Amino acid sequence: MLAYSIIEKKQAGKELSKDEIKFFVIGFLEKKIPAYQMSALLMAIYFKGLTEKETASFLDIVINSGKRIKFKKTDKYIVDKHSTGGVGDKISIILAPLLAATGKVKIPMISGRALGHTGGTLDKLESIPGFSTNMNIEQFKKQTNEIGCALIGQTDDICPADRELYALRDVTATVRSIPMICTSILSKKIAEGIEGLVMDVKTGNGAFIQEYNDSLKLAKKLKYFGENYGLKVKAVITDMSQPLGNKIGNWLEIEESLDVLKGNGPVDVKEVTLELAQESLLMENPTRNVNEIKKELNDLINSGAAFEKLKEIAKKQGADISFLDNPQKYKKAKYIQDITAKNTGYLHKVNSMQLGLDAIDLGAGRRTREDKIDPVSGIEIHKRIGDKIDRNDLIFRIHSNDKDAVKNIARKIESRLELLEETIAKKKLIVEKI
Amino acid sequence: MLAYSIIEKKQAGKELSKDEIKFFVIGFLEKKIPAYQMSALLMAIYFKGLTEKETASFLDIVINSGKRIKFKKTDKYIVDKHSTGGVGDKISIILAPLLAATGKVKIPMISGRALGHTGGTLDKLESIPGFSTNMNIEQFKKQTNEIGCALIGQTDDICPADRELYALRDVTATVRSIPMICTSILSKKIAEGIEGLVMDVKTGNGAFIQEYNDSLKLAKKLKYFGENYGLKVKAVITDMSQPLGNKIGNWLEIEESLDVLKGNGPVDVKEVTLELAQESLLMENPTRNVNEIKKELNDLINSGAAFEKLKEIAKKQGADISFLDNPQKYKKAKYIQDITAKNTGYLHKVNSMQLGLDAIDLGAGRRTREDKIDPVSGIEIHKRIGDKIDRNDLIFRIHSNDKDAVKNIARKIESRLELLEETIAKKKLIVEKI
Repeated sequence: MLAYSIIEKKQAGKELSKDEIKFFVIGFLEKKIPAYQMSALLMAIYFKGLTEKETASFLDIVINSGKRIKFKKTDKYIVDKHSTGGVGDKISIILAPLLAATGKVKIPMISGRALGHTGGTLDKLESIPGFSTNMNIEQFKKQTNEIGCALIGQTDDICPADRELYALRDVTATVRSIPMICTSILSKKIAEGIEGLVMDVKTGNGAFIQEYNDSLKLAKKLKYFGENYGLKVKAVITDMSQPLGNKIGNWLEIEESLDVLKGNGPVDVKEVTLELAQESLLMENPTRNVNEIKKELNDLINSGAAFEKLKEIAKKQGADISFLDNPQKYKKAKYIQDITAKNTGYLHKVNSMQLGLDAIDLGAGRRTREDKIDPVSGIEIHKRIGDKIDRNDLIFRIHSNDKDAVKNIARKIESRLELLEETIAKKKLIVEKI
Repeated sequence: MLAYSIIEKKQAGKELSKDEIKFFVIGFLEKKIPAYQMSALLMAIYFKGLTEKETASFLDIVINSGKRIKFKKTDKYIVDKHSTGGVGDKISIILAPLLAATGKVKIPMISGRALGHTGGTLDKLESIPGFSTNMNIEQFKKQTNEIGCALIGQTDDICPADRELYALRDVTATVRSIPMICTSILSKKIAEGIEGLVMDVKTGNGAFIQEYNDSLKLAKKLKYFGENYGLKVKAVITDMSQPLGNKIGNWLEIEESLDVLKGNGPVDVKEVTLELAQESLLMENPTRNVNEIKKELNDLINSGAAFEKLKEIAKKQGADISFLDNPQKYKKAKYIQDITAKNTGYLHKVNSMQLGLDAIDLGAGRRTREDKIDPVSGIEIHKRIGDKIDRNDLIFRIHSNDKDAVKNIARKIESRLELLEETIAKKKLIVEKI
């Protein structure tokens, strides 16, 4: 078998055999096939796609490139949630302890770091003093079994082929390929040993896949290939034409997550969290009444049980949980600037991706792998699309330890702000469930 | 500027600026941009093409990535010929001394080695004992000025960006891109310091670009971009649906070239050579009468002047020219096997590319960079498409020092041979001139 001939075959739009894909992917992982041949193949896949058979082969090969976690047959259903990524998306941090608090499911959650214009669950969790997301597979399994949930980062031995492929796709503009996105997401989740997967597929200008039809296509493919591999999969398409919640930034999003877990917080964050939690519990027991599930989840929040579960997880993972009880003791950013309305009108549009990039410039993300994240920097957004805004209303609040960045970003955000006289319908948050 | 954004821009089919192309190509040459990003860009170019403006920029950047040879303003016109590559194509070896023998033009010819299924002029020349194709730019200029012609290989300081790009394209299935082929061919020829370029663009099943419409497109682009750079360009599209001449293999093709230079040899080789020579001389003086040029060229062959010029060049480049005077003293292959007709009929089709690959298996080419070429191995083809063949007529003669290879290849060639009852029109060799 020749790497060259395989590239040429895909370039001509022909279907690769499982052996050919294995030869290429494992050859690349074992450094027998150089990165420049892999990137040529990835670009050919970007243009020519993968058939269903090829995608299934690819997925299987990536899953089996490393270790697979196996949980013992138990009375607890193993479920996880994944989001395709958006701005202000802190759902996992609320959802995981909420689900664990039900005592009905276990959530072995492997998350990622900030990517492009979006934040990462790991970076947010690590803004909690002492919180560690490093764990080996045995510790990860043990904690999941003991308290129902563990929140960690990708380990070296799970889907190493995905890790290497992703790093290459990230620098060769080949991330935006639906079959490759499917493979990358599902492989890691399947290797975690889960039985059910709830997918939050984002659509709109703050998502990686912005066009609704592409989001729908991705959602369907994720469901198809996940089920094909024996998982239960539910995909919920949610709107990302504006950030989720009122806060973007690592510690700021922890604050907002704590608000929701304490029964307060923004309604949109709560709505998406409850929807995904409900779908997870329906997987565990499809015969349950939806209203009963909703009541159970609300009760777990209102009683403080979900918040206590987050504290339990955080404590197990080394965190100083006094910051969860008293988030106001966290050191604030040196520079905080408000942007208020200069006139009256309706907000029609938010450039969510740009807000995500602005947050990076304020210190909330990384421009290069080496950059350090400033946990307190970020942006608050106090108005949503369709809101009526009066003069002097607070719209944005900018946090950073970098004085110049605050000035620059405030100017940029202000210059983009446009209020129109006509009213506009509020956006539907849960667009479709598949 | 970011390599990533440039890949993404081309991937979306947008036009790159000259600065962006320069940043990428020179960055790659200087190892600041890794090969995996370059191969992703090359694959995006394969799918999305290059605009005229981009191709012109690319060409200029590659030419100026190294040294450019400049000949003094002189009474002699500087011309060169290039072929897009075919099986049995030994035209350069006859054409260069023939043109030099006119005394009207100078030919500073930089050639390549065997590539894919085709042989290389350098490998053929080096089958002449002692013939060296290594020369620095100063020696190359000096010899061209003194005797009208030098025949060398690519030097390190001419178009280094093309050399690096070609090596990468060769292993990533991105050679077959018309704008990249144009850039690669023209850059090296322009850097040689020529004024006129005659292109032999091959079409048919032994060519790299097999479809006639693609060959035509390539011919037109070569002419357009060459002229755009101030060259005179004439493109002659010639048939490569069967090998050129009767011999494939390094020393075998030298023998055939000597036959033509001595006034004998196959008519097709002579026809293409004279056509390209005539076009070269018309560039030098467009007012000349074509019949007068033809007569001049035939006279130079018949008088032995062209043959003497080859000997003069070969002697300057270290060759033992007694082998040119007496080619029969060259050691023959150990195993020579004839394939004769089992029945009567007409030859309709020759798989030229496969014959080129068969010749490699016999020892006439390289499978890997490290392979050594066996100069005497190869294949003779004694019949052409449209020929009436009688029982026991000699069709192929196989030469090799590898006994098993002879047996295998003889079997393969024989199994492919098909004679049909109906007659078929002879192929037109010179298909079009542009």
